[in-house]
Amino acid sequence: MSDLSSAELQKQIEDLQRETKLLRAEREELIDDKRITDILLSKSDAIASETDLDKLLTLINDEARELLEADRCTVFVLDDEKGELWSRVATGIGRSEIRIPKDMGIAGHVATTGESINIPDAYDDPRFNRDVDKATGYRTRALLCMPMRNRQQDTIGVVQVLNKKEWGGRFDDKDEKLLEILSTMAANQLEIAQLVDELQKMFDSVVETLAATIDARDPITAGHSKRVTLYCLQVAEQLNFDQKQKDLLRYSALLHDYGKIGVREAVLTKDGRLEDDEYKHIQTHVVLSKEILRKMYFRKDLRAIPEIAGAHHEKVDGSGYPKQSAGDTIPLMGRIMGIADVFDALTYKRHYRDPMPIERVLKILESEQNKHFDPLVVRSFFSVPVSNIASIIVHDAVGRLPKEDEETFTRYALGDFYSAVTRGKDQQSEGERRLVERFIDLYNSRS
Amino acid sequence: MSDLSSAELQKQIEDLQRETKLLRAEREELIDDKRITDILLSKSDAIASETDLDKLLTLINDEARELLEADRCTVFVLDDEKGELWSRVATGIGRSEIRIPKDMGIAGHVATTGESINIPDAYDDPRFNRDVDKATGYRTRALLCMPMRNRQQDTIGVVQVLNKKEWGGRFDDKDEKLLEILSTMAANQLEIAQLVDELQKMFDSVVETLAATIDARDPITAGHSKRVTLYCLQVAEQLNFDQKQKDLLRYSALLHDYGKIGVREAVLTKDGRLEDDEYKHIQTHVVLSKEILRKMYFRKDLRAIPEIAGAHHEKVDGSGYPKQSAGDTIPLMGRIMGIADVFDALTYKRHYRDPMPIERVLKILESEQNKHFDPLVVRSFFSVPVSNIASIIVHDAVGRLPKEDEETFTRYALGDFYSAVTRGKDQQSEGERRLVERFIDLYNSRS
Repeated sequence: MSDLSSAELQKQIEDLQRETKLLRAEREELIDDKRITDILLSKSDAIASETDLDKLLTLINDEARELLEADRCTVFVLDDEKGELWSRVATGIGRSEIRIPKDMGIAGHVATTGESINIPDAYDDPRFNRDVDKATGYRTRALLCMPMRNRQQDTIGVVQVLNKKEWGGRFDDKDEKLLEILSTMAANQLEIAQLVDELQKMFDSVVETLAATIDARDPITAGHSKRVTLYCLQVAEQLNFDQKQKDLLRYSALLHDYGKIGVREAVLTKDGRLEDDEYKHIQTHVVLSKEILRKMYFRKDLRAIPEIAGAHHEKVDGSGYPKQSAGDTIPLMGRIMGIADVFDALTYKRHYRDPMPIERVLKILESEQNKHFDPLVVRSFFSVPVSNIASIIVHDAVGRLPKEDEETFTRYALGDFYSAVTRGKDQQSEGERRLVERFIDLYNSRS
Repeated sequence: MSDLSSAELQKQIEDLQRETKLLRAEREELIDDKRITDILLSKSDAIASETDLDKLLTLINDEARELLEADRCTVFVLDDEKGELWSRVATGIGRSEIRIPKDMGIAGHVATTGESINIPDAYDDPRFNRDVDKATGYRTRALLCMPMRNRQQDTIGVVQVLNKKEWGGRFDDKDEKLLEILSTMAANQLEIAQLVDELQKMFDSVVETLAATIDARDPITAGHSKRVTLYCLQVAEQLNFDQKQKDLLRYSALLHDYGKIGVREAVLTKDGRLEDDEYKHIQTHVVLSKEILRKMYFRKDLRAIPEIAGAHHEKVDGSGYPKQSAGDTIPLMGRIMGIADVFDALTYKRHYRDPMPIERVLKILESEQNKHFDPLVVRSFFSVPVSNIASIIVHDAVGRLPKEDEETFTRYALGDFYSAVTRGKDQQSEGERRLVERFIDLYNSRS
């Protein structure tokens, strides 16, 4: 009896041991599953809240590399209209964009067929293009490339990871599973970021067009709002403004002359000096700008646009218009616009005069400190690199100068030019002489 | 020995039984956990791709009710600038908005303190406001109200669910856990939807301002682009356009006269008839509109704006300008804008004439079918409710007529008015007589 019982007990133990073993395995699997879900949920949180296209692409890149322990990652976005795949690479001095035909190479195959590709050595696949490796000295081995599909199951891009760091160097089923879930999240958010990006571009485009057309009512002021905006942003750079501040200043500057829509053409384009009442009529444009802008909808961080735009003719000594505000009661951005506006007016032709010589313009800026201008803003303006100022004057844009000019201007700020030109040729170094000569050449070269 | 062994075995069995019991419980919990995560991941996908603010709020509402088996749900969004909580309720005829001070009632408490509230019977809580129940006859019992926090942990809104359908009628810990995760997802996406909403509002605002200011260069055309847009949208309604088509038509109509920025003021505002060369100069505005719009950035589904805006002076018989396109080669939306543009021009004062009597305007639309206008579009225009046309003529907006006028116009389309007025008083029903009299009264009442 006792023997039998012992055998029974033995069997019972074995059954129980089998069950616990199964349960333990099941638990392992569940915990493993949960670990992956938890990782993905935590990634999802970060990815799902990023609406900036460039930052999102960088984030997907980083998350994919970390999650799959891969050495490199490229996110390609499908541009269906152009039939291309593009990818942006952040570099030290900005970003560069790669564009390839949408059916070229491994990424192209994945984008057009929607099929994934997982190979231990890319060099065994004839679709792989070795040129990039040749140029960079990199050796691609394991490669996993998957489509990014939106909710409608359209392929909108491709994620490609290279060279697994561990586990024998190839991507396994779990990697595929992980990248698939990540790709879905990425695709979803990519569409949102593109939507935001397009709305932003459309808004910028209509604001820029509006600024350009207002200026173009008088051919002689064409490009004025754009250049004023660019000068303002150069000062913003010197004052270490953050992106939100730069946006506020940019839109305020682009829209500062909007009120000119209400100024009579005959006055706006009059040849020669204005009569008193005509001058008063022109001055109304500031109040009108502010009134029109006030009726527009701007989100919270842009709500000061009317106030700032309406302050671009105030002077720190209180002798400006329309409010005769003085000193700090004029918004800083209004004070910045004040100097940018005057600088552009003096360096360009007007109906009643030619462009003023650059050294005279700078002398006015200097001497008007504490009268028209805030000394802090004048100082910041004088700290802007000469190359940027010259490029804006000549090309209505930054970074458009030939390489030789860039080299001549390197290390010189606008204040250095002013100091050199004031000292006169005999007191200038060789570099300064080249600087002065070339800047004045460029300045006078404008038709 | 055998006894001892049996006792040992017994103990071993007990240990194993304890372990399996623990493992089973653990498994249950893990499976339960996974079920919740799976549900949430599936919800997350739907929530994370919704960028339309109203649709998102409805979705959060539905998901919360389903997930927590609750009878009702309200999503409140914090408007920090106004110090209010708002909630939108979709109704049959549009949507209504509720706004309460941000610290009022249960929702206000949660919004200001960031603490959750979970109570079996709301009537036991003095902060609960019974007025809504009194008005609707509803009886609120169980109530769970939680803050929605963004990634920076700021409370940006509140989710409140009412009356659990099962489980003894109160919300438990698991409900709290579920709603917390859902609230986090919701908060995240809410910020995105608000960002998109604000960008969209800013874009609309700048486009509308631009249209209004272009019209305002000549006081006599003030409001023209807005009214043309509203007429176009009425026709779009008759033609069952979808939202994307309506947006394309709306922006094209708002921007159709943008090129007038390039027309000389003296010609634009000339009293009396125009000379031939002046008329030609005015005509250039169409080409200019198209050229300026072409340089702007529009996303894919709006890319036809320049083409459509540039076609608003074409005629179906090929005698229009600038391309002398005929029939279907003129974009449908261009043909719609053509009739809306003429209708507004004739029903409003011009420098060289007063508004034309409404019956003469409609006679022109009818007789110009297959000459200036597309008969399909004329038919659609004649199908628009009289009340909408009258409201646009008098108030530059739809739905602004007094209730009596709305009642008089009910069931009549513009074509009914035209037919009645053509038949003459003797051939009109009593309703038609009232219709004709009141419409003409309104039409002539404009200063």
